Amino acid sequence: MSQFIQAARRCATVLGATALLTLPALSATAHANDGYRIWLRYVSVHGAWLHRYRRSASELVPGRARSPTLSAATEELERGLSGMLGRPVPSEPAITRNGAIVLGTPHGTPLLRSLHLGLRTLGKQGYVIRTLQIHGHRVTVIAGNTDVGVLYGVFRFLRQMQTRQPLEPLAIASRPKIRHRVLDFWDNLNGSVERGYAGDSIWKWRELPEYLSPRYIDFARACASVGINGVVLNNVNASPWIVTPLYLAKVAALANVLRPYGIRVYLTVPFSAPITVGKLSSADPLDPAVQAWWRTKVAEIYRAVPDFGGFLMKADSEGEPGPENYGRTQAQGANLLARALAPYHGIVMWRAFVYSTNPHSEDRVRQSYDIFKPLDGKFDRNVIVQVKNGPLDFQPREPFHPLFGAMPHTHLMLELEITKEYLGQQTSLVYLGTLYEEVLRADTWARGPGSTVARVIDGSLYGQHDTAIAGVANIGSDRNWCGSIFNQSNWYVFGRLAWNPDASARTIAAQWVRMTFTNAAGFVRPVVRMMMGSREAVVDYSDPLGLASQMAGTHYGPGPWIAPSKHLPPDWSDTYYSRANAEGIGFDRTASGSDAVAQYAPHVAAEFASLKHCPENLLLWFHHVPWTYRLASGHTVWDSLVLHYVRGVAAVKRMRSTWRGLSRYVDPRRFQLTSAFLTIQLHEAQWWRDASIAYFHSISHLPLPPGVAPPPDSLKAYEAFCIPYLEGTPGNGAACPPDDAPVPR
Amino acid sequence: MSQFIQAARRCATVLGATALLTLPALSATAHANDGYRIWLRYVSVHGAWLHRYRRSASELVPGRARSPTLSAATEELERGLSGMLGRPVPSEPAITRNGAIVLGTPHGTPLLRSLHLGLRTLGKQGYVIRTLQIHGHRVTVIAGNTDVGVLYGVFRFLRQMQTRQPLEPLAIASRPKIRHRVLDFWDNLNGSVERGYAGDSIWKWRELPEYLSPRYIDFARACASVGINGVVLNNVNASPWIVTPLYLAKVAALANVLRPYGIRVYLTVPFSAPITVGKLSSADPLDPAVQAWWRTKVAEIYRAVPDFGGFLMKADSEGEPGPENYGRTQAQGANLLARALAPYHGIVMWRAFVYSTNPHSEDRVRQSYDIFKPLDGKFDRNVIVQVKNGPLDFQPREPFHPLFGAMPHTHLMLELEITKEYLGQQTSLVYLGTLYEEVLRADTWARGPGSTVARVIDGSLYGQHDTAIAGVANIGSDRNWCGSIFNQSNWYVFGRLAWNPDASARTIAAQWVRMTFTNAAGFVRPVVRMMMGSREAVVDYSDPLGLASQMAGTHYGPGPWIAPSKHLPPDWSDTYYSRANAEGIGFDRTASGSDAVAQYAPHVAAEFASLKHCPENLLLWFHHVPWTYRLASGHTVWDSLVLHYVRGVAAVKRMRSTWRGLSRYVDPRRFQLTSAFLTIQLHEAQWWRDASIAYFHSISHLPLPPGVAPPPDSLKAYEAFCIPYLEGTPGNGAACPPDDAPVPR
Repeated sequence: MSQFIQAARRCATVLGATALLTLPALSATAHANDGYRIWLRYVSVHGAWLHRYRRSASELVPGRARSPTLSAATEELERGLSGMLGRPVPSEPAITRNGAIVLGTPHGTPLLRSLHLGLRTLGKQGYVIRTLQIHGHRVTVIAGNTDVGVLYGVFRFLRQMQTRQPLEPLAIASRPKIRHRVLDFWDNLNGSVERGYAGDSIWKWRELPEYLSPRYIDFARACASVGINGVVLNNVNASPWIVTPLYLAKVAALANVLRPYGIRVYLTVPFSAPITVGKLSSADPLDPAVQAWWRTKVAEIYRAVPDFGGFLMKADSEGEPGPENYGRTQAQGANLLARALAPYHGIVMWRAFVYSTNPHSEDRVRQSYDIFKPLDGKFDRNVIVQVKNGPLDFQPREPFHPLFGAMPHTHLMLELEITKEYLGQQTSLVYLGTLYEEVLRADTWARGPGSTVARVIDGSLYGQHDTAIAGVANIGSDRNWCGSIFNQSNWYVFGRLAWNPDASARTIAAQWVRMTFTNAAGFVRPVVRMMMGSREAVVDYSDPLGLASQMAGTHYGPGPWIAPSKHLPPDWSDTYYSRANAEGIGFDRTASGSDAVAQYAPHVAAEFASLKHCPENLLLWFHHVPWTYRLASGHTVWDSLVLHYVRGVAAVKRMRSTWRGLSRYVDPRRFQLTSAFLTIQLHEAQWWRDASIAYFHSISHLPLPPGVAPPPDSLKAYEAFCIPYLEGTPGNGAACPPDDAPVPR
Repeated sequence: MSQFIQAARRCATVLGATALLTLPALSATAHANDGYRIWLRYVSVHGAWLHRYRRSASELVPGRARSPTLSAATEELERGLSGMLGRPVPSEPAITRNGAIVLGTPHGTPLLRSLHLGLRTLGKQGYVIRTLQIHGHRVTVIAGNTDVGVLYGVFRFLRQMQTRQPLEPLAIASRPKIRHRVLDFWDNLNGSVERGYAGDSIWKWRELPEYLSPRYIDFARACASVGINGVVLNNVNASPWIVTPLYLAKVAALANVLRPYGIRVYLTVPFSAPITVGKLSSADPLDPAVQAWWRTKVAEIYRAVPDFGGFLMKADSEGEPGPENYGRTQAQGANLLARALAPYHGIVMWRAFVYSTNPHSEDRVRQSYDIFKPLDGKFDRNVIVQVKNGPLDFQPREPFHPLFGAMPHTHLMLELEITKEYLGQQTSLVYLGTLYEEVLRADTWARGPGSTVARVIDGSLYGQHDTAIAGVANIGSDRNWCGSIFNQSNWYVFGRLAWNPDASARTIAAQWVRMTFTNAAGFVRPVVRMMMGSREAVVDYSDPLGLASQMAGTHYGPGPWIAPSKHLPPDWSDTYYSRANAEGIGFDRTASGSDAVAQYAPHVAAEFASLKHCPENLLLWFHHVPWTYRLASGHTVWDSLVLHYVRGVAAVKRMRSTWRGLSRYVDPRRFQLTSAFLTIQLHEAQWWRDASIAYFHSISHLPLPPGVAPPPDSLKAYEAFCIPYLEGTPGNGAACPPDDAPVPR
């Protein structure tokens, strides 16, 4: 804390002295690299690559089919090529020279019909990009079975140039492994965003349907560029207003904007909508009047939005109403909606994030499995149960959720968090590709080795077709969309892994860096390294060794001392999760404890349950161990815990110093933003380290490992420190009383 | 209402059918004319003007003095000239040719010292722009006594070009008539903005002091371009955190960014800060410990911000603490702070917006005068009492506040609202220049005829020097700053009238149009006409004939039926103000009523009190008249009321049709935004008209004037209609339960 506050306070003086001289250097141009164009910047190519690319992209042959989607694809290609090649590329009705680019579908473009493009196995969303000789010319064909396939192919082709890959010969064929690739917006109708750290909602409900901001189109382009094809417009803590006629008109207007980009719109609705909106006396899923109300409402929605995607539901969770209110199961609740949607091929994404905040419940992380596992096979075909990556709640690290692999007769989808609710929120640099990769590659052993989470959700493990993946969006009204430049990489990697869950987080990071900043190797290499290590850094300085939920109530900064109280149920406290006491630390989830480990397949359960085989980075998730327990490294748990905190801070320091050495590669605006945020993150990491060490030391009473300095402030000071206003602080109230303490040491 | 809802609901269908075809036309370019550059666009000049301007602006001679302010001035000139002239203008150490532009102060630039520029009477903020022959060259000199004067002169010179005025010969001399020209930000530290309709706060407290957004500089440029020289950073409903060390570091960082542009920073603090921040037991202004606390705190602030401007205080008002809590007067409260600030030449702006929400109080609009008038002469020299333009609260029309002219021994400043809290908020097109002009030109008769409000606040009436004017800002994080393009004109005109309260709202409107859009006469003329009539339109469709406060609790849309209740004090209701009953309508403020009219100087009081001489547009503010009372027009009050509503709607229709005819002059993006907003405003005006007529008809029971159609819905329907989410709807809750009613007729 000390450094954090000191640094903040010192700035009053420091800035007073220096800023007068340096400020005008911050050029005030309106349209500098402010991050708006994300990874679709299409900056000029120079040198040999320019020459090669111009030869391979000499003219466009977009065919005559003019659907909105094909228009969007053609415009994107024109925009990208003219930006990168420094001149417009002419469009021709037919191939006239080498380097022509033909785009379209076999259905709409006669020329393509006659070619053997290998599209048959690529489904409705796949595409091919192939170098061919046609009528004596060297030509690139970008083709899909549908218009949106062509659009995806165009973005893929542009990426080839953006990342300095050859344009010929190309023989690319790609299809998404997951069918529904969805962004969940936790956006409220009043414009605020739950767990949003990038300004307000991008949906301007007040202006809709009259005004359609061009920003919606740029959003859609960004999504299409990584294959995202669904958007849940509103918060899972839902307002019933969303399905009233007043709002459906707005929803329809948005759906119309997004449709050409292959994006379907979904909504979340409170389970109690038949009561609040329909004025019925019940929302019981078995009540025929309730069933009729949903049928009528769904019909009304499809009249407004003919390709409406369906509902995402948060029920019986954190105060939201649900089927439990009527003694019905989650399956009965989900099927109620599924049956109303089925005639229109709509789906229900039913969240498995259900738990009761019951002081007597033994282990919160058990609950979702205990509730849903027995319902396997009870859900209608068009229900997909949406399961968070881990059994708790988007922590820096959790083991994979035990439901994955455990419900062979149910469609399961994966819910990831793209917004960094628990990982530093707006300002920290954390690339989530490695977190996503970790869970996707986790082996459930449900059908023996190789039963990865990826294979559960891509349907290959159990032969399912209605597959889906969702990410809680980190997008807001901030000019740079995501609150920081590097936060954009998480939107990007989510989309790319949703398309192909077997892709490499490192490769994707490198491509994102090239597209977003520069292809210069001297920049790409260190920045990718920094990104690849960034998630482990935040684990190290906040929740190492399998700890979880050690943060303050704001989900920002440390709060390991937070204990249950009359106002705080145990599983919303921090001590509940650390279980730190005089003897040791960690949550015993083996047979001697909550036995949550038994929810995993036997092979996995045995590994997790074994002190010896349990991965060290999940140790305290599954085991309560003495402070002096020795890890494989030879360190005691206590020493190791402390050293992880120290290591996390050191990692952030390295990140900052890496970044500072790269100024010559980046425009000043994006450089300074990132640089300032890394400084904030360094303060944050130090605060985490110092507060955590102070707290756990007060429990373990063990000496610090050699060379580790004691926290500069007292535990009491860390406990008292509070950031009064963070995004999401409700109303105009501060989270804590004002603190006028003199500057600490 | 009917049309409003119908239109909204119909769009679901209409857009479904047509948007597929038209959407790609909304080009998705990132940096189109999105309004960010406001009136400082500096677009290329063409034709004869280009030739002339190039000749008159051939080189810059900025002198050697390199203060941050002079650097900003030089950069602005370079930016403006290169933009408008299509090529960079070289900077030279000395004059080398005709058309040179010399800028600086006599103090800093030896060349200027020898010239007789007439700067002596222009004070610290004035400037001259003069065409001179120097060393045989035709030269333009832009000079001030201080650097900031030069900066103001540069903006003035650029405006000359932006509005296509000749550059020579020039003999411009200008100085501000009011010393402190301040924007009040009602911005909360959590990023929300009270009565803000343009996104969140532009102050990114979370990122400060580490990150200084370039947007702060663009904000400062805009302010300096119209002479605004003070900014109150935070909401008058203040958080005590603002004066803690954590936040003072952030404030200092902002002050450093704004300083080069001549802008001083002010803060608002709760009067109870000695208790909440200082942990004292009292905030009594006569308590020596309280006085000492403020002295210490002010010293701390000045260490962080050496040119800190002072405090703006809202005390004893709408729940805010104040001196009344200790039985002290407003003067004692204000002087407490003034004495702490005096050693640093800081000022206190003490709001006169004080009233008790007391069900027994006879007339809310009397209170401010009754409280403050007796205190004339009791305030310290560095207190300025801040008085709203009217005695109620920023209504579409009010008479001027009776305190103006009534406190000869007190510094009085004028508080205007730039944000359109009561005038349609984000979407309506209302140019406030005419409202500001109306109050500035209002004659208080305090020292006989010509004792205008302008002369009270510019100090000329009573020979005062510490003069000030404030506007409640309409600026937020929206890309276009103000929520709409036309809202920018209100920021602009506020600054211009603050510099010169005798300037013409029409001239300023025309200049704004030219700078913001185009100089084409075919555009300027109709748009200025539209702007000049726009405020009267909103008066007509919402509060005609001197009515006030007839809006819903959200301050958006009609609510004339809102009556006092257990939860709503009388003076927060609407019926309290209309006083409509079977006999008639209007608030009797003559001697037979509340006698508020007696607060004005006798000449004015007599005019207002006379049914015959009272201006018709204030009739119902001062008089309760029978429905059948005949106005000068020959219409009864009832007929006239109805016809005003009808006229207001017709005016908005005309505005929309004017705008639609101008598409060839405006880029598509700004055109479509404005066009969509005018459609929203038309719905809003119709809703106001229909609901108001339905309500007052239920009281008067009189037939509608010939040719006026009855409201399409029942009064009950209008009363039930509610917009669930408007900017400022607290939390995630809706303002009203969901309404699933079928589409009305």
